[in-house]
Amino acid sequence: MSNKKKSDKGITSRAEDYSQWYNELVVKADLAENSGVRGSMVIKPYGYAIWEKMKEQLDKMFKETGHQNAYFPLFIPKSYFSKEASHVEGFAKECAVVTHYRLKTAEDGTIVVDETAKLEEELIVRPTSETIIWSTYKKWIQSYRDLPLLINQWANVVRWEMRTRLFLRTAEFLWQEGHTAHATSAEAIAETTQMINIYAEFAEKYMAMPVIKGSKTEKERFAGALETFTIEALMQDGKALQSGTSHFLGQNFAKAFDVTFTDKTGKQEYVWASSWGVSTRLMGALIMAHSDDKGLVLPPKLAPIQVVIVPIYKSEEDLEKIRELVNGITDQLKEKGISFKFDDRDTHRPGHKFAEYELKGVPVRLALGMRDIANGNIELARRDTFEKKIFPQEGIADYIDNLLKEMQEAIFNKALKFREEKTHKVDTYEEFKKVLNEETGFILAHWDGTSETEEKIKNETKATIRCIPFDAPEEEGRCMVTGKPSNKRVLFAKSY
Amino acid sequence: MSNKKKSDKGITSRAEDYSQWYNELVVKADLAENSGVRGSMVIKPYGYAIWEKMKEQLDKMFKETGHQNAYFPLFIPKSYFSKEASHVEGFAKECAVVTHYRLKTAEDGTIVVDETAKLEEELIVRPTSETIIWSTYKKWIQSYRDLPLLINQWANVVRWEMRTRLFLRTAEFLWQEGHTAHATSAEAIAETTQMINIYAEFAEKYMAMPVIKGSKTEKERFAGALETFTIEALMQDGKALQSGTSHFLGQNFAKAFDVTFTDKTGKQEYVWASSWGVSTRLMGALIMAHSDDKGLVLPPKLAPIQVVIVPIYKSEEDLEKIRELVNGITDQLKEKGISFKFDDRDTHRPGHKFAEYELKGVPVRLALGMRDIANGNIELARRDTFEKKIFPQEGIADYIDNLLKEMQEAIFNKALKFREEKTHKVDTYEEFKKVLNEETGFILAHWDGTSETEEKIKNETKATIRCIPFDAPEEEGRCMVTGKPSNKRVLFAKSY
Repeated sequence: MSNKKKSDKGITSRAEDYSQWYNELVVKADLAENSGVRGSMVIKPYGYAIWEKMKEQLDKMFKETGHQNAYFPLFIPKSYFSKEASHVEGFAKECAVVTHYRLKTAEDGTIVVDETAKLEEELIVRPTSETIIWSTYKKWIQSYRDLPLLINQWANVVRWEMRTRLFLRTAEFLWQEGHTAHATSAEAIAETTQMINIYAEFAEKYMAMPVIKGSKTEKERFAGALETFTIEALMQDGKALQSGTSHFLGQNFAKAFDVTFTDKTGKQEYVWASSWGVSTRLMGALIMAHSDDKGLVLPPKLAPIQVVIVPIYKSEEDLEKIRELVNGITDQLKEKGISFKFDDRDTHRPGHKFAEYELKGVPVRLALGMRDIANGNIELARRDTFEKKIFPQEGIADYIDNLLKEMQEAIFNKALKFREEKTHKVDTYEEFKKVLNEETGFILAHWDGTSETEEKIKNETKATIRCIPFDAPEEEGRCMVTGKPSNKRVLFAKSY
Repeated sequence: MSNKKKSDKGITSRAEDYSQWYNELVVKADLAENSGVRGSMVIKPYGYAIWEKMKEQLDKMFKETGHQNAYFPLFIPKSYFSKEASHVEGFAKECAVVTHYRLKTAEDGTIVVDETAKLEEELIVRPTSETIIWSTYKKWIQSYRDLPLLINQWANVVRWEMRTRLFLRTAEFLWQEGHTAHATSAEAIAETTQMINIYAEFAEKYMAMPVIKGSKTEKERFAGALETFTIEALMQDGKALQSGTSHFLGQNFAKAFDVTFTDKTGKQEYVWASSWGVSTRLMGALIMAHSDDKGLVLPPKLAPIQVVIVPIYKSEEDLEKIRELVNGITDQLKEKGISFKFDDRDTHRPGHKFAEYELKGVPVRLALGMRDIANGNIELARRDTFEKKIFPQEGIADYIDNLLKEMQEAIFNKALKFREEKTHKVDTYEEFKKVLNEETGFILAHWDGTSETEEKIKNETKATIRCIPFDAPEEEGRCMVTGKPSNKRVLFAKSY
């Protein structure tokens, strides 16, 4: 525990220390916690319930666009992994390696690794599955009739990160990885584009988080990709968070694993590929995009509990009367597909419950006491604005139904307004540094297109090119560092 | 490929070689295949779609009984794993061990393990998660108010099996593992019982597979459990398949990880526990319980495609007319929540398609040609009985809706009848051996309750006690081997 000033929920405020605010919020809102395993987190039930809602929606969007789920091995033989040169280069430094397959009891009674059970070839715990999947696709693809192959996998992956943070960077994380195979380059690029659009739609419509779509620079591309598309979101501390990527892999993996197909004219061709993924990192994005000093703010579409009902009562008899009335309301909520919880625990006082659901970001809170019953009223509080109102019980379900939609939009608009205020057009390197020091946020600036300049900017300011936005207008300009000509602005920021 | 006689689908018949029939069917029906990683399988999209339907239903049943999902680390530090003595004893011989966290490029350019990146403490890839979960529960449980804790995890686990078979026994498999904590022994036992009942309900109502519920003998219990409940199903070759287990763990893990709680009187007590799981092994059970020499037979509730519609046409014009009519039918199927596929591929002939969907176990096949259009008829074939009939198109969706329910029941009843025919009451060891040699199947016999006799029977006949059935009637008898008194029959079989 630190000595910094806490809000009334016992969380450090964002203004005080944004990073600590995040760490405390994740734990106090029961989303996740560190485990005894270095860099690995435990995703707690409430956090997992949000992830499940994300998964469910993404899975639906993948299936609607013709993708099927499958499952490939966790372990990848070292030799597979080594086949695509830039890929192994990109991941070698963060691989967990399985070398033995048995434990035994030593003479002193302790449990030790059985050295006689050493693997001939080490197995890598997948950091991503291109290599194991493309070694399989070789068996599945012979003819143009087998294409396109549109497959997704929900899985855990391991990347041995040295500095970890809950959800944002953990040694093990959960994700989905799509791996598709196509007959032509154009089809593979269309798929890569389709998937970044799906991620953007998910981020904006479900997570209520505005994102900027664009291409990564060569330096920031996925290891083994010809092109990486990304969605970039702005967090409340002015840092960017890469929230999803979609890669055009060209024929790199097809060549590494010798995956060819007979086209309609009978010619043998290498297959074209894409891969794309989002992970539990999205949980970090969701938390940081909207939450405040009182706790989580969840967009209604991803809230595991959309409405909580807290009874205010003195006697068992009162509670019974409230319960009766609540049943009528929850029946209506159920009909509308609105999730709710009636918290009638007698172990906690109403004030305690109010604070708990604020912390957990439940969008709507209803409170109901004996006076409300007499008056036919109910008290409603919305989490995002803290607005509190008294409503007639009659028609409350309809009101909530609309309110949830309104809140979903309001949360998005608030984040969008924040991003607009924090996006700076900058023409000189001086100005660029000034913004980074004072305001942070997104910066749109001209760049000469070279890795050297990109590297120099990163070294000097810690800001990186988040992407070359798809919708950046053509605009004559000069690189703010070298003065060389540039025809569009790119998006810079410090990032997670 | 073997030289044995194949059925018309190119699958060895069950009578010829049951084991080979299974192996070929799993691959040819596109359910799964072996990967390049020893003992690890690839679950192909069609197989995964069945697993997803299983997961979805089980998850619903878990949630309806108050369980929440969470996620715990894949890696378990060796020291955690060693804390519960019988647990580590049970799993030590089949553990994949992570010893390093980095690769590097050697001087000769090959990729090798970086010996400088050796872990101080080895990590075990989870074979099951009791130890990592109970080390976490220590943080979550202080008071009786924190109990019961009802948590489930969907995850991959690794057990280094030497002889593997697709779905039945693989080094890596997918499963769910429930881990619950309770204030009293009685509550933990009630939970253990509830979950075996849920597994049995799932097996019978969804997989259409009759099961026998019972307790495992001490010898067959889970490593670390005081009591293991099981559901046992009979496969078509007369062997038993353990399909799900639920364990009463007593206070073993609470003691190993020092998890105590303050009860209502203020006393510190150790927590009581259960754990329970089913895995992708259920896929093997599903396949072996119902399928035939032509391919899979899937109970409609778990079939990814319940109805396939095959057009019989000569010209594009014909196909267009058929398509119009089919749209009307599929609209009605959609309304009833029946899944379907209209297979209008022009790359395959109808006969080829018929065979393919038989192989894949699609419950209902509709075929529609120009004459049918003229007559207002449609041809319907059911997969389980191969019955074919001509029906009026009018009302076909209603008919199918009922038929699917009827088929679900018929498939269950067929399996039940088979089991009843293959269940033998036996009173002498001679008879016991004779049945095992000739007929196989389940055997109900008296046993003296000792591990010695159990061991002797296993060594001499390869049959094991599958369970002591919950519903075995009290019945005076004598152990068929030792002649000692016994008061109920137990269930024997050879098993997977």
